[in-house]
Amino acid sequence: MSKYQALKQECYEANMQLNELNLVVYTFGNVSAVDRENGVFAIKPSGVPYEELKAEDIVIVDFDNNIIEGDKRPSSDTKTHAYLYKHWPNIGGIAHTHATYSVAWAQAQRDIPIFGTTHADHLTADIPCAAPMADHLIEGNYEHNTGIQILDCFKEKNLSYEEVEMVLLGNHGPFAWGKNAAKAVYNSKVLEVCAEMAYLTLQINPAAPRLKDSLIKKHYDRKHGKDAYYGQ
Amino acid sequence: MSKYQALKQECYEANMQLNELNLVVYTFGNVSAVDRENGVFAIKPSGVPYEELKAEDIVIVDFDNNIIEGDKRPSSDTKTHAYLYKHWPNIGGIAHTHATYSVAWAQAQRDIPIFGTTHADHLTADIPCAAPMADHLIEGNYEHNTGIQILDCFKEKNLSYEEVEMVLLGNHGPFAWGKNAAKAVYNSKVLEVCAEMAYLTLQINPAAPRLKDSLIKKHYDRKHGKDAYYGQ
Amino acid sequence: MSKYQALKQECYEANMQLNELNLVVYTFGNVSAVDRENGVFAIKPSGVPYEELKAEDIVIVDFDNNIIEGDKRPSSDTKTHAYLYKHWPNIGGIAHTHATYSVAWAQAQRDIPIFGTTHADHLTADIPCAAPMADHLIEGNYEHNTGIQILDCFKEKNLSYEEVEMVLLGNHGPFAWGKNAAKAVYNSKVLEVCAEMAYLTLQINPAAPRLKDSLIKKHYDRKHGKDAYYGQ
Amino acid sequence: MSKYQALKQECYEANMQLNELNLVVYTFGNVSAVDRENGVFAIKPSGVPYEELKAEDIVIVDFDNNIIEGDKRPSSDTKTHAYLYKHWPNIGGIAHTHATYSVAWAQAQRDIPIFGTTHADHLTADIPCAAPMADHLIEGNYEHNTGIQILDCFKEKNLSYEEVEMVLLGNHGPFAWGKNAAKAVYNSKVLEVCAEMAYLTLQINPAAPRLKDSLIKKHYDRKHGKDAYYGQ
Repeated sequence: MSKYQALKQECYEANMQLNELNLVVYTFGNVSAVDRENGVFAIKPSGVPYEELKAEDIVIVDFDNNIIEGDKRPSSDTKTHAYLYKHWPNIGGIAHTHATYSVAWAQAQRDIPIFGTTHADHLTADIPCAAPMADHLIEGNYEHNTGIQILDCFKEKNLSYEEVEMVLLGNHGPFAWGKNAAKAVYNSKVLEVCAEMAYLTLQINPAAPRLKDSLIKKHYDRKHGKDAYYGQ
Repeated sequence: MSKYQALKQECYEANMQLNELNLVVYTFGNVSAVDRENGVFAIKPSGVPYEELKAEDIVIVDFDNNIIEGDKRPSSDTKTHAYLYKHWPNIGGIAHTHATYSVAWAQAQRDIPIFGTTHADHLTADIPCAAPMADHLIEGNYEHNTGIQILDCFKEKNLSYEEVEMVLLGNHGPFAWGKNAAKAVYNSKVLEVCAEMAYLTLQINPAAPRLKDSLIKKHYDRKHGKDAYYGQ
Repeated sequence: MSKYQALKQECYEANMQLNELNLVVYTFGNVSAVDRENGVFAIKPSGVPYEELKAEDIVIVDFDNNIIEGDKRPSSDTKTHAYLYKHWPNIGGIAHTHATYSVAWAQAQRDIPIFGTTHADHLTADIPCAAPMADHLIEGNYEHNTGIQILDCFKEKNLSYEEVEMVLLGNHGPFAWGKNAAKAVYNSKVLEVCAEMAYLTLQINPAAPRLKDSLIKKHYDRKHGKDAYYGQ
Repeated sequence: MSKYQALKQECYEANMQLNELNLVVYTFGNVSAVDRENGVFAIKPSGVPYEELKAEDIVIVDFDNNIIEGDKRPSSDTKTHAYLYKHWPNIGGIAHTHATYSVAWAQAQRDIPIFGTTHADHLTADIPCAAPMADHLIEGNYEHNTGIQILDCFKEKNLSYEEVEMVLLGNHGPFAWGKNAAKAVYNSKVLEVCAEMAYLTLQINPAAPRLKDSLIKKHYDRKHGKDAYYGQ
């Protein structure tokens, strides 16, 4: 039995969650889970429908994109996952989807404004939308450069990946991450929910104001601050 | 066995209804049920997913926010519930959600206009949206002050909590209440339905007129007036 | 056993269909089925939730609104059904809902333009929206007068109830009818589908043109004309 | 047993998929599957509800619209299918639906702009919307002329049916095709997904730019190019 059995299982279950949460159609998404000790991550195989996916299909890859275990080709987005794991030491899982409202904002090339407490319960910034890459980066090592693009976006906007656990790639779609694969999926769903609510908010009131700072701080801190009192 | 077993069960079932009616994702909502005789209410524990929630997890709290029974921490919104129960003697249940269309109107900081009979079957006023609180109230006893904010809104707009059983908190989301927890959930759903219909109405006709007074009166009275003839 | 058992069963099944087709929440809708020979119709009892509804709960009423059989109070909209049955001899069933998109157009007080073949497969006219009634008619015999309002609307717009089997009541919602109760429910769903498509069409292109006459005629006739070749 | 048993089964399953993917209500859609060797195709019978459809109901027709096998009347759109099979030798299946967002764009008479990678993963062009036909073509051999209209649209826009496997018929709805019936259904779903995303994109940003050429090429090629690395 593989030493990565538990990692594959975690990755498999998180991928299946994507499907149950209506965040994907067909094969338009993938989740990975990392094993920091062994310097590898488990990721969905490319193009395998969720109805057919099995835990043993999950591929084990290292941070330099070498396949360590598995018969199948890993997700075409594997290099983006690897780049993020390599540069962000405190994340344990990554999810990528083509969820409808998230993609719509990405295609609109707009950050999702923080309009309410649903958003502020999870992060204090607008959800960033990274600009589409320069042509030579797209034509080059595309998926690797996608990772660079995400980090550049966070640097430019002065965001912390530990607080802002999600990003939109302009004209493409969302990536989300977290302490493990399940949390990455959770953040993908939160992003989709905030994307839909923000869309509707602007339809009802195009001049809707950003949430005021005191409410952002209050809601974020009661869930994530040092005196947090949300949850058990 | 706890003397509050039946109350916990009522509260548990109403919370599970929120989930079945698609009014919540994850843990973004809570319902409480009051026991006026004993001066306590039952409320969902904080941050517990609906799939895992059990009747015995429900927490019993008094109107001064003391935990009377239960191993878990109650909902982070408990003080808002307590405040409403204390000041509105004729309500038996309260529900709070982050339902999509209700939140969108709250984020747009707009009252939901009474556009049709679906709305007038339940209340004769626009669904009020309370303004976001002043900063010092947010930074202070936030959830308690949220209760004050709701009562101030009703006073200012001259509304009766016995007729208008729902409110939007600006930039946050809806609270609804009623004679018991099930009715509070029902009103949460009615609010969400009216919120979606009003949104679509304005998209189709930005100049859509408010429902005329005679129709408001007719529909409200046939369900709630002294000569009501709706229902059994 | 009641001589109206089969009629009650037809009515019951059609009401349950409303629910399965997502055309109602809670008790916001009702369907009736007529027995022309005996001059009565079967209709949903008022305010009974669909989960609890049973065939024996269905009420039998004559065209003058007398209860012929049944322990329960009939739908509060019964007089509208009676009026339509009395004046439109060739209909066998009527359905009333508060379906989301249909209500949105009713609240916007706009006819639904015939934009495509989905619409023309069923009728050749815009789906009419009857104006809200005058105050004295609302304050008077409201549900009876609602029937008058529908007939007046058809007269004014020169429409045939045998071709146009649906109407919106301004600020209220849709009524649909047909040769039997199942067909009335079918038409309620068709109306909702056309309402959603027309809404989206105008969002994408506010200047979207009405379907051209030759296509209206072609699609309507291939399903309903004397040389119809649709179906078995 | 019919020599077309396997073909009927393929056609039946693809039709049922339409239903499961929420691309049809009632009978508003049809799928066919071709047998090139025998010069025939299997198609859904006209007006048969999906709940009642059985594999043996599927009708076998040749490219000149003669019924080769089957007791039922074939889909009223059969001549359009026949025309496409006759002129496009490399397709194996065709699907027609009245899916909501696809129809909305067709009714708006607009091509669906290529806004993102979800779209570019499948085709490099805007999804074309064929203009409604001239009156004399509608009044003539309508369904046959619909096939001509589609081919004329592709010729005029200089599109390849092997790359662009979908089209909107102005004021009507979508047709999609592919190497087999299942792929035609898949393309119908992809079209619907892209139609919804493009709609939302324009609502959020009416000036949203078309996807840049380098990204179109990159995403299409990684799935369909000679060095494709997507899938197994």
